[in-house]
Amino acid sequence: MAARMRLYSMPSSGNSYKVRLLLAHLGHSYEHVSCENGSDDLRMAEEEGLALFGKVPALKLETGEVIVESNAILCHLGRDSSWCPRSPLAQSRMLSWMFFEQNRHEPVIAWRASLRCYPHLRDQATPARLERLLQAGHMVLAVMERHLSRSDWFGEEMPSLADIALYAYTHTAGTRGGYDLGQYPGITAWIARFAALPGHIELDEIP
Amino acid sequence: MAARMRLYSMPSSGNSYKVRLLLAHLGHSYEHVSCENGSDDLRMAEEEGLALFGKVPALKLETGEVIVESNAILCHLGRDSSWCPRSPLAQSRMLSWMFFEQNRHEPVIAWRASLRCYPHLRDQATPARLERLLQAGHMVLAVMERHLSRSDWFGEEMPSLADIALYAYTHTAGTRGGYDLGQYPGITAWIARFAALPGHIELDEIP
Repeated sequence: MAARMRLYSMPSSGNSYKVRLLLAHLGHSYEHVSCENGSDDLRMAEEEGLALFGKVPALKLETGEVIVESNAILCHLGRDSSWCPRSPLAQSRMLSWMFFEQNRHEPVIAWRASLRCYPHLRDQATPARLERLLQAGHMVLAVMERHLSRSDWFGEEMPSLADIALYAYTHTAGTRGGYDLGQYPGITAWIARFAALPGHIELDEIP
Repeated sequence: MAARMRLYSMPSSGNSYKVRLLLAHLGHSYEHVSCENGSDDLRMAEEEGLALFGKVPALKLETGEVIVESNAILCHLGRDSSWCPRSPLAQSRMLSWMFFEQNRHEPVIAWRASLRCYPHLRDQATPARLERLLQAGHMVLAVMERHLSRSDWFGEEMPSLADIALYAYTHTAGTRGGYDLGQYPGITAWIARFAALPGHIELDEIP
């Protein structure tokens, strides 16, 4: 009997949430190993060498092969689905947004949210650092807003893997990150549109 | 007559260098618009809306379409070449390294190099910041070293787009970034192996 696909992920983390979101939309069956900060399961995943780059999510395929990095896992699972556009140009543009998310969005908006919300990081949350991340985050949100003033999705004409990648930390940018999303009607409408898709699941609370 | 492909890039920047490297290896003909910091050409590219996410490189295709984000441009140009492995699993693993590069490597190693080398950033280069980036960079280099102790390349068995992406800022991590690469025999050998590939071109100096 073939082993089931197994996802090692941190339920309260946006990077992990991306993968669970796509798996929910695709209707794939998998075993979920919950690796919250400081958990035994996270330590075991690290000891087994699954967290190749030192963090989760990590996806262990039925064949035993492991894939890491949330957006690479999205590409692997979503490659032949409706979440990945067919034309090479549209695929490349989807990747542009996914690299933007990992280079400009996540290190700023997710990091500010983590500093504000995870107790073990609170001593790093200096006012100067939070202010710098606030300003940098608004530049990132402005880039997204400009796109959403012309387009409903970050795919061409339908939601794509880039929408999943960007939704993960944008939909909590207000509540966790402390950004005023009221300034961004395009982003606010896109968040509502995304959350109304059939098959949508919610992000877990921080424990 | 069809327009030529046009690359807007900053000659001294690693992200821009990646694209010029791949174009050199592929032997593609293109027009290069040099957009060094503060140049008129960079300002014009911004005014024409080519720097969609606020920075270069940006690639304008023969058809007029624009693609941004260095690693997305690599995927677009290299998709059907020997720089992109054929199997879906190998492609996904190549993407893992490319997302790692933009999320963990470039914001640390390239940023420390920029703080040390670009005169207009020097007032942001506080000792505490440089020290934090030094420590974080060594964790990134250790992840690469572990891989290179088992494998010659970041592709499966041959150089891939991930090698180009990681080479860009790793080969100057010593000279520009101030990291002691002597600690990493795997990385040092890989840098030499990569630079010896036929078709290789050098990164421009910082003006």
